[in-house]
Amino acid sequence: MVNNSKNVPYYAFGEGSLAGLGTLLAERAKSRGGRCIFFVDHFFQGRSLVRDLPVEEGDTLFFVSTVDEPTTDGINEYYSAITAKYHELPSAIVGIGGGCTLDTAKAVSNLLTNGGKAEDYQGWDLVKVPGVYKVGVPTISGTGAESSRTCVLTNRRKNLKLGMNSEHTIFDQLILDPALPVTVPRNQYFYTGMDTYIHCIESLNGSHRHAVGDSFSREALALSREVFGSADMQNRANVERLMVASYLGGCAIANSYVGVVHPLSAGLSTVLKIHHGLANCLVMNVMEDFYPKETDEFHRYMEDQGVDLPSGVTGNLDDDGFARLYESTIIHEKPLVNALGAEYRAILTRERASEIFRRI
Amino acid sequence: MVNNSKNVPYYAFGEGSLAGLGTLLAERAKSRGGRCIFFVDHFFQGRSLVRDLPVEEGDTLFFVSTVDEPTTDGINEYYSAITAKYHELPSAIVGIGGGCTLDTAKAVSNLLTNGGKAEDYQGWDLVKVPGVYKVGVPTISGTGAESSRTCVLTNRRKNLKLGMNSEHTIFDQLILDPALPVTVPRNQYFYTGMDTYIHCIESLNGSHRHAVGDSFSREALALSREVFGSADMQNRANVERLMVASYLGGCAIANSYVGVVHPLSAGLSTVLKIHHGLANCLVMNVMEDFYPKETDEFHRYMEDQGVDLPSGVTGNLDDDGFARLYESTIIHEKPLVNALGAEYRAILTRERASEIFRRI
Repeated sequence: MVNNSKNVPYYAFGEGSLAGLGTLLAERAKSRGGRCIFFVDHFFQGRSLVRDLPVEEGDTLFFVSTVDEPTTDGINEYYSAITAKYHELPSAIVGIGGGCTLDTAKAVSNLLTNGGKAEDYQGWDLVKVPGVYKVGVPTISGTGAESSRTCVLTNRRKNLKLGMNSEHTIFDQLILDPALPVTVPRNQYFYTGMDTYIHCIESLNGSHRHAVGDSFSREALALSREVFGSADMQNRANVERLMVASYLGGCAIANSYVGVVHPLSAGLSTVLKIHHGLANCLVMNVMEDFYPKETDEFHRYMEDQGVDLPSGVTGNLDDDGFARLYESTIIHEKPLVNALGAEYRAILTRERASEIFRRI
Repeated sequence: MVNNSKNVPYYAFGEGSLAGLGTLLAERAKSRGGRCIFFVDHFFQGRSLVRDLPVEEGDTLFFVSTVDEPTTDGINEYYSAITAKYHELPSAIVGIGGGCTLDTAKAVSNLLTNGGKAEDYQGWDLVKVPGVYKVGVPTISGTGAESSRTCVLTNRRKNLKLGMNSEHTIFDQLILDPALPVTVPRNQYFYTGMDTYIHCIESLNGSHRHAVGDSFSREALALSREVFGSADMQNRANVERLMVASYLGGCAIANSYVGVVHPLSAGLSTVLKIHHGLANCLVMNVMEDFYPKETDEFHRYMEDQGVDLPSGVTGNLDDDGFARLYESTIIHEKPLVNALGAEYRAILTRERASEIFRRI
C-alpha cells in the first residue's frame, strides 16, 4: 500500500498515567510469556521513578547513558546481553527517557526479532518483521521519538548517523505523563523542545508535502510557539503542551521530511558528538539565509527564555574536520531535496556549508 | 490502562490511494483465508467506483441504503446473511461511503466475532473481542466515523440512538482518497462537513478536556473554518482539507465528549428520522443561548455557501411527539454533563428543550 502511514496504536495521556504501566506489563507477560526489559535514562538512577517501576523478578533494567547518543555498537551489545540471558523473547521492551533512551528501546526491539546487526537496518524500510512489543515513556519533550518511525543511531565506522526508518520501529504503546518532564534542566528543556519547532518549520517549508502531515506540523508548531513565546516555558501547562507538541511533531515527520537544519545538525553530531537538540539549535541560530523569519523567531525565544548557546564550537577544526562535517551533512539527500530541490549540491556547496559551520 | 486512547493503526492518504485496496485485500486473504465483504453506499450503484473495486469470486458486496440511518435490526440481518453464506470469518470487511456505511461496516465487523445481537453492544466498552479486520474508505467528510471509536445505531424498539462505543470499533486501516468526495451534492456536503465543526466546538467548550483531544479539535476546527469560510467550499483543495478535518475530528471525539447540539440532534434523528448531518445543522441554527459566537459563525457559513435548511420540521408534532424528542435527548448524560454540568436537567428542562425544538 503506497503512502500507508502508521500511527502509534495506543497512547495513554495524563498526569499519573505511568501508574498504569504495571497492569499493562502484567497482562502482557501473562498472555505471551517472557520477561520485561527496561531501558531507563541514567538521569533517573537512584530516583523515585525507578523505585516505583513495576520491575518483576527476572526482568532486566538497563540504565542508558546519554553522554553519547546511541550507536550501532551499543545496540549490538544490548542485543548480545539479552539473548545471552534469556532463551525466549521478552514480553515487552520499555523505554523511559529522552530521544536516546527511546531510540535505544526501539532499536533493540527490532534487532531481537530480526537478528543480525543494528547497522543492517539503518536506512529506509529494511526492518523485515515487527519487533518485540514496546512501550515508550518520554520524560523530556521535543524529539518526537515517541511517535516517529525511526530510531537514530550513530555508526562510528561509517561516520554516519542514520535511523532504522520503518513502520516496525513505531512504539506499540505510549504513556504520556506530563508529571515526568518537570525536572528537566532549563537549557536542555529548550534545546530538546526546539526539535519539534525546527522539524515542523522544515516540513512546512519543504516541497514533499502531505495534508495530514501538514496538520500535525501546524498544530505542533502552534503549541511550541505558545510554550516558547510565554513568560515561563516550563510551567505545568507548558510542560503538558510541549508533550503534546512533541507527540504530534513525531506524527508529522512520519509523513514528511525535514529540511536544511537537520542534515547540518547531523554533521555536528557525527563529527563533534554534539547532542541532537543542541546541534539543531546551534544550526538554527545561523539559518538567516534559509529560514529568515523562523531564525528571527528562534532568536527571540532564546532571549525571552534566557537560554544561551555555546560559541566557537567548530573553532578547533582543521580542513579535514570541515570536510568530514560536509560529508556527513550532504549524504542526507531526502531532506535536502525536500528543502532545496534536486540540485541541492549546487546550493549547499562545500564552501557555503563550511561558512555556516565556521559561524557555529 | 486508564485513559488509553487508540488510534486507527494505518491510514493511506492521497489522491488515487483507493487503487491500493486490491493488493491490501489480496495479501490479507492469502495470509488469513476467508472472503471479503464490501459495504458500499447505494449512491455508487452502477458507477465506476464499484466496477473498479477489487471484488473477487466468493466475495459479497452489499449496497447500503442511506434512506434511513443504520438500525440494530439492519445490522442483525447482515450478520445472519453473512453467517448463513460462509462457514469461516471473512478476511476483511470494507466500508465505502459516508457515516451510515462506515458505521454499518464497523458494527457488522464487531458482531461477527462477538456474536449475539447488535443491541447487546450499544453503550460503553461492551464489545468483548476485536472484530473482523476492517477497512474504512470515506466518500464524504465530516462525521469522523472513519477514526472514531463508535458506530451509531438506532434501536427502534427502545426509541434509542446509541453507538457501540469501544476501541474494537476503530477501523484497522483507512484509505483517505480525496478524489472520492468530489461528487457529493452541495447541501449534503455542507450538512455532513459541519459535523466536524460542531463536534469540535462542543468539545472545546466542554469541561471534559484532554490536551491531545484539544489539539485534534483545534486543528480540525481551523481546517473547517478554512473550508466553509472560503469562496468555494467544494474546490479540490477544500475537499482535501475537509477530509483531513474529518479524520482529525474523529480522533478528537475519541478523547472528548460532544455538548448540547448532539443530544438534541439525536432526538430529531430518533423521533423524526432526520439524518445526523442535517439534524445537527437544524439544531446549530438555533443555539444562540448555548454557543452564541459559533451560532453566528454558522449563520455566516450558511449564507456564504448559499446553503439552506428546511423549516417547520417539528410543525406537525403533538405533545407526545415533543415528549419523545425530550426523552431521546436527555438520556445523553455524558455530553450534557460535559456541556452543562451535573445539574444539566435543571438547565435543559423539558420546557426549554421544547422551545428549542419548536423553532426548528
